Amino acid sequence: MKKVLLLVFVVQFFMGFSLLSQQALWGGSEIVSPEINADKSVTFRLFAPDAQAVKLTGDWLPSEGWVPGTVALEKGDNGVWQHTTLPLASNLYGYSFFVDGLRLNDPSNVYLIRDVATLTNVFIVGGGQGDLYKVQSVPHGSVTRRWYNSPGNNMNRRITIYTPPGYEAGKEKYPVLYLLHGMGGDEEAWMALGRTSQILDNLIASGKAKPMIVVMTNGNVAQEAAPGESALGFVKPTMQLPNTMDGKMEETFIDVIRFVESNYRVVNKKSHRAISGLSMGGFHSLHISRHYPNMFDYIGLFSAAIFPPEGATSEVYSNWESSLIKQKNNGYKLYWIAMGKTDFLFEQNVKYREMLDAIQMPYVYRESEGGHTWDNWRLYLSEFVPMLFK
Amino acid sequence: MKKVLLLVFVVQFFMGFSLLSQQALWGGSEIVSPEINADKSVTFRLFAPDAQAVKLTGDWLPSEGWVPGTVALEKGDNGVWQHTTLPLASNLYGYSFFVDGLRLNDPSNVYLIRDVATLTNVFIVGGGQGDLYKVQSVPHGSVTRRWYNSPGNNMNRRITIYTPPGYEAGKEKYPVLYLLHGMGGDEEAWMALGRTSQILDNLIASGKAKPMIVVMTNGNVAQEAAPGESALGFVKPTMQLPNTMDGKMEETFIDVIRFVESNYRVVNKKSHRAISGLSMGGFHSLHISRHYPNMFDYIGLFSAAIFPPEGATSEVYSNWESSLIKQKNNGYKLYWIAMGKTDFLFEQNVKYREMLDAIQMPYVYRESEGGHTWDNWRLYLSEFVPMLFK
Repeated sequence: MKKVLLLVFVVQFFMGFSLLSQQALWGGSEIVSPEINADKSVTFRLFAPDAQAVKLTGDWLPSEGWVPGTVALEKGDNGVWQHTTLPLASNLYGYSFFVDGLRLNDPSNVYLIRDVATLTNVFIVGGGQGDLYKVQSVPHGSVTRRWYNSPGNNMNRRITIYTPPGYEAGKEKYPVLYLLHGMGGDEEAWMALGRTSQILDNLIASGKAKPMIVVMTNGNVAQEAAPGESALGFVKPTMQLPNTMDGKMEETFIDVIRFVESNYRVVNKKSHRAISGLSMGGFHSLHISRHYPNMFDYIGLFSAAIFPPEGATSEVYSNWESSLIKQKNNGYKLYWIAMGKTDFLFEQNVKYREMLDAIQMPYVYRESEGGHTWDNWRLYLSEFVPMLFK
Repeated sequence: MKKVLLLVFVVQFFMGFSLLSQQALWGGSEIVSPEINADKSVTFRLFAPDAQAVKLTGDWLPSEGWVPGTVALEKGDNGVWQHTTLPLASNLYGYSFFVDGLRLNDPSNVYLIRDVATLTNVFIVGGGQGDLYKVQSVPHGSVTRRWYNSPGNNMNRRITIYTPPGYEAGKEKYPVLYLLHGMGGDEEAWMALGRTSQILDNLIASGKAKPMIVVMTNGNVAQEAAPGESALGFVKPTMQLPNTMDGKMEETFIDVIRFVESNYRVVNKKSHRAISGLSMGGFHSLHISRHYPNMFDYIGLFSAAIFPPEGATSEVYSNWESSLIKQKNNGYKLYWIAMGKTDFLFEQNVKYREMLDAIQMPYVYRESEGGHTWDNWRLYLSEFVPMLFK
């Protein structure tokens, strides 16, 4: 047999693929967008030679009430519409285009995050807080999607677990942060929208956080898994109410703890357990931590809903004061309440702090700018995690 | 403290979120698209009242050469454009809209798969082969994204590992399938485009496949991780040539095997190792399996490239005949070559089979309809896996 060296034209690998791959060629755009410039301004580009008007909306643009701001792109001679922002603060931002009234994701940017039923392009401006949300050249933890049995829900349920760098090779036992999503979220939300594995990797690498396991549950207890990840198929994601704030999440949370503590090398002590969540997940963290009043030394309420919905009849909600007093008397290290100044849940949290003051239950209050946003929840996570297990 | 039950309007949870969440409301469409009808026809809908012309392209439409077919949608009085296909064979399909010449993903469908730099909407028609690609109500394996050290590449690299249902709770040792992607892919390709975890879950549940671990590597050895998953940031994905077919993947594959066999409960015997891949990954499977000629009892070449590119100087490619004869003499259980009738690599594989015939090296040849497509690679995986480790 002769040594056979046939020229394999690269183009052959490009061509003849399925539609998906073909589009990588003829549908894929050569345009760079977004481009993060040296001065931290950002340039967006869209090839749309026949369009009449192209706008974009983005997290950095001031909104009017609930309506996000927009800005027009300018058309160049080459059919490419373009807009450059002023320099932006270091952060993760979302944006979308509008072409003649039609919402469009940026065909030059494959990075999208789903929130409920909407996919939005994202980018990160570095040089500050945004660096925590980037993958850095640091040791990386592992992220596992797996299923656990929840006898309380009579169901196998999907869960996302972050284990810190070195977990697999070592023998050490770790503390655990249970991290809960808001309404509309699921066991993917903190990973995708929250950049949890990046925040943890980076805080651990810089010595600011202790290595810990992070457990991201699905708080919609009637749901086995995130949309597309259960036998329901590729269903359109929707807000999951009811079955989210009816007491069942709190009642059955022990199933999660048992699963984690029998499947991972963890210290199964109160001193090594934290629970926190955003919005509905803050609500769950509040009520889970007082329902199991000697289970958690660290509690974080991020823009939390406080009060059960009218008609919630679970016994979980019938003993507020007594269970909070139990929790207080059992003691804990940190009860952290974080809230944005313009959050629609601000007043609920004022009332809740009055409740806590009335029973002399200690807490730390952190007020930030802004409102009920992932921007704040990523920030809160990056502030909460360094305070844990120390 | 009085029992406080404030009415938390659901709407409050909907509103006041970040742009990402706001769009879940005002950007999210109430339209159902695609809708899989009872007769397996599929209806697509797009709200675009100001559009002049709306078309769609999809995997089921006949293409002309490399140009995928398109079909026009019809405009209804409500501004919703619509098209219903004929009944489709059970399968996974990709599609996109074109609105006045602009390519657009379906705003009603959050399920997208990335192939190189293009995101394409997908759906599954059940009732046949497509059922293997669905999440079913069966026990689910775990999928972990983690990093391993590759001394041969002087790099930590990202890898995706599927462990079968029951792995964590048991003590059994498992066989391993190393599953390699094609050019343009990475350690995410077989999961996203290949539906590997669904295929494995379903074949294992039905008793058609032995429980096994599946290891999905990144075959672009100059790359630490898939786009967006390394410190390079949210870069635009590109084809990764060179550093893909230069011998380095083959030379350093032992790093992957060592990592797997020292981190998982596996039977570290040839009888319990399989390797397969598509296109460039078939090329890698061919050359890895003869470079380590007593390592694998099962080899699968799916639409494989065969011949090294001109100028590839690695010693890995200098000893074809002798290493294949070694591999033959060492023995193996299955050498499976699968190829589509219209694949642009068809002739290369004819030549390769002549090479194998000339040295009387046994193989099984499977010829399918179609060409160089993920449609075929999902099919080949679903046929190859049941033949392993029996």
